[in-house]
Amino acid sequence: MHPTEIVLSPRLRSTPYEARVFENGIKTFTIYNHMTLPVNFTSVEDQYHHLCEHVQLWDVAAERQVEVVGPDALRLVELITPREVAHCKVGQCIYAPLADEDGLVINDPIILRLAEDRFWISIADSDVKFWIKGIAYGRGFDAKVFEPDVSPLAVQGPKADDVMAELVGEDIRALKFFRFIETDIAGTPVVLARSGWSGQGGFEIYLQDSSKGLPLWDAVWAVGQKYNIRAGSPNQIERLETGLKSYGSDMTHDDNILECGFERYLNLDKSAEYMAREALQQISRDGVRRKLCHVEVQGAALPALRERWALQSDGRKVGDASSCAYSPKHQANLLFAMLSSEVSTPGTELSLVVDGSAHQAIVRDERWK
Amino acid sequence: MHPTEIVLSPRLRSTPYEARVFENGIKTFTIYNHMTLPVNFTSVEDQYHHLCEHVQLWDVAAERQVEVVGPDALRLVELITPREVAHCKVGQCIYAPLADEDGLVINDPIILRLAEDRFWISIADSDVKFWIKGIAYGRGFDAKVFEPDVSPLAVQGPKADDVMAELVGEDIRALKFFRFIETDIAGTPVVLARSGWSGQGGFEIYLQDSSKGLPLWDAVWAVGQKYNIRAGSPNQIERLETGLKSYGSDMTHDDNILECGFERYLNLDKSAEYMAREALQQISRDGVRRKLCHVEVQGAALPALRERWALQSDGRKVGDASSCAYSPKHQANLLFAMLSSEVSTPGTELSLVVDGSAHQAIVRDERWK
Repeated sequence: MHPTEIVLSPRLRSTPYEARVFENGIKTFTIYNHMTLPVNFTSVEDQYHHLCEHVQLWDVAAERQVEVVGPDALRLVELITPREVAHCKVGQCIYAPLADEDGLVINDPIILRLAEDRFWISIADSDVKFWIKGIAYGRGFDAKVFEPDVSPLAVQGPKADDVMAELVGEDIRALKFFRFIETDIAGTPVVLARSGWSGQGGFEIYLQDSSKGLPLWDAVWAVGQKYNIRAGSPNQIERLETGLKSYGSDMTHDDNILECGFERYLNLDKSAEYMAREALQQISRDGVRRKLCHVEVQGAALPALRERWALQSDGRKVGDASSCAYSPKHQANLLFAMLSSEVSTPGTELSLVVDGSAHQAIVRDERWK
Repeated sequence: MHPTEIVLSPRLRSTPYEARVFENGIKTFTIYNHMTLPVNFTSVEDQYHHLCEHVQLWDVAAERQVEVVGPDALRLVELITPREVAHCKVGQCIYAPLADEDGLVINDPIILRLAEDRFWISIADSDVKFWIKGIAYGRGFDAKVFEPDVSPLAVQGPKADDVMAELVGEDIRALKFFRFIETDIAGTPVVLARSGWSGQGGFEIYLQDSSKGLPLWDAVWAVGQKYNIRAGSPNQIERLETGLKSYGSDMTHDDNILECGFERYLNLDKSAEYMAREALQQISRDGVRRKLCHVEVQGAALPALRERWALQSDGRKVGDASSCAYSPKHQANLLFAMLSSEVSTPGTELSLVVDGSAHQAIVRDERWK
């Protein structure tokens, strides 16, 4: 496998920030929700160290929104997730994995409640809009479901609060995690949330007019100069250390929601109707057969992972690793892997097979201990 | 905009043929249905000339299938398209654009009827599976909807018949357009259809076991040697000349199905229930306001198109071009563009704006005349 270019055509949608991404010397992209998502400006390692120390500006417009609005909006959003949505207040975000009638994962979005009857579902990489539209049509719900012109820009890292305080005022420091306000930046209305796909703290700025992307980028960039701001992106090392799973890699529509470590967010007995109830209650009674786990491999950094790597126990395949990064903090390779339940206990020793070679691996807990 | 690499992770699924694609020196990829789709091995021009003269092997595994099977399968498939499906015989393929309850395009697949109650919907780049699953759930239909382990490999070009005749026997030459048979190649069962995303003729081989991709590729490759077979891909020049539109570029979920030039395939009065009926009959009565058109620009080759280009008439914006290629055959740039109906008549002169410069453009008919 050698490096290959990506051909950017209108089908792979551009973002409102893309000109700045190129000006900052982007080297690699991925595609996410039919849109470009920047990956590397320098190197994953360099960007990791900078992210953990300073502040970065991320073009995460590819985190698209599905807006659900109307008299049946709450009923519809409750229907698609085993998480309790009614308790989510206006101005609040919740992490709410979506599950179909078989309990299989459709996506793991953040849901923002903008009004009693209006939600943004901020999605990972699958066309959730079409699924919800199909359900709303089939059930005859009175709700509009569409993709609004909304493109998040993330400000992540320990100095994110300093940057945002200069930009919108000191009060922003008091904004709680997973809460948002509506304000103006660079003359354009934005939803500003304390959230983002890293464990380093920060904000997501939901731009609502794609023609204003560059002024918004430039406003944050100008204030960020004295904090050593750089263009960045969700970082593979940092997300492994923090334990952030990626839909499409670590869990897919082949996995049921109880296998993915989401239990703490769910309420299988919630009072509202949800389509996965019967399937999940059955799985819950029977017990899950697989578990999404943290696995560590000591020694030198492993190569880039293109396809899943097998994990074995006594020569028998017991799972697959789906993400990997070498962590400077842990001085080890960190992996996410879907494992048979009987080998999912922290401390269990396994064998990881990479290009025909076996490496000693050990199951860890969620804090990599 | 400078060339950028793509980062291949498990989220961007590999295909059963990918090892051969790399061995043949792939230079550029696109991403399609969360999967790699090869673009350039040499250059678009070189591959165009070879495709029109010889035969090529295309890894089009990214054309994923949505299988719909069960007692309500036909009812469900009828529901999602304004094309008549009941008339499609077992062993036949039909081009059947999908439309939602507002008449907007969800995808423009080929549908293969494998049995009276079993269909493969061979999709362009959107998660049709989730949409159909949502509808089936919402309506309580008795049908299973899933993505089977099916990965098409296309054999395209004027010598495709010679290659396939050597591989599966002379009878294959008599297979009609958009008909398929079930047979074995390289010891694995395949669905073999006369179809493919070019106007040069050829076949699509639907592999049904992804572990058999390389033997299948190698079997076609071996027979193809004396016909000058090469690794190739859907070709931008050829598809413009042939008039093949691409979902996500040329038409999207923002466009209604009657604006896209699909009329010849549709029957708005079909007897079966379909969800777009009311919307499309209304649009049909009112007349469409826009039309997906063929537009020609004389002169030197235009640059690569990243985002849509505006088309103007008397200084007023009247549309957008979404695809472009310089055609050696027509000695001109060929473009697809969504235009206001009043400027959609062949022969209409317009102005195309590329990077601030205006170019004279002319609307053509579907044969570029």
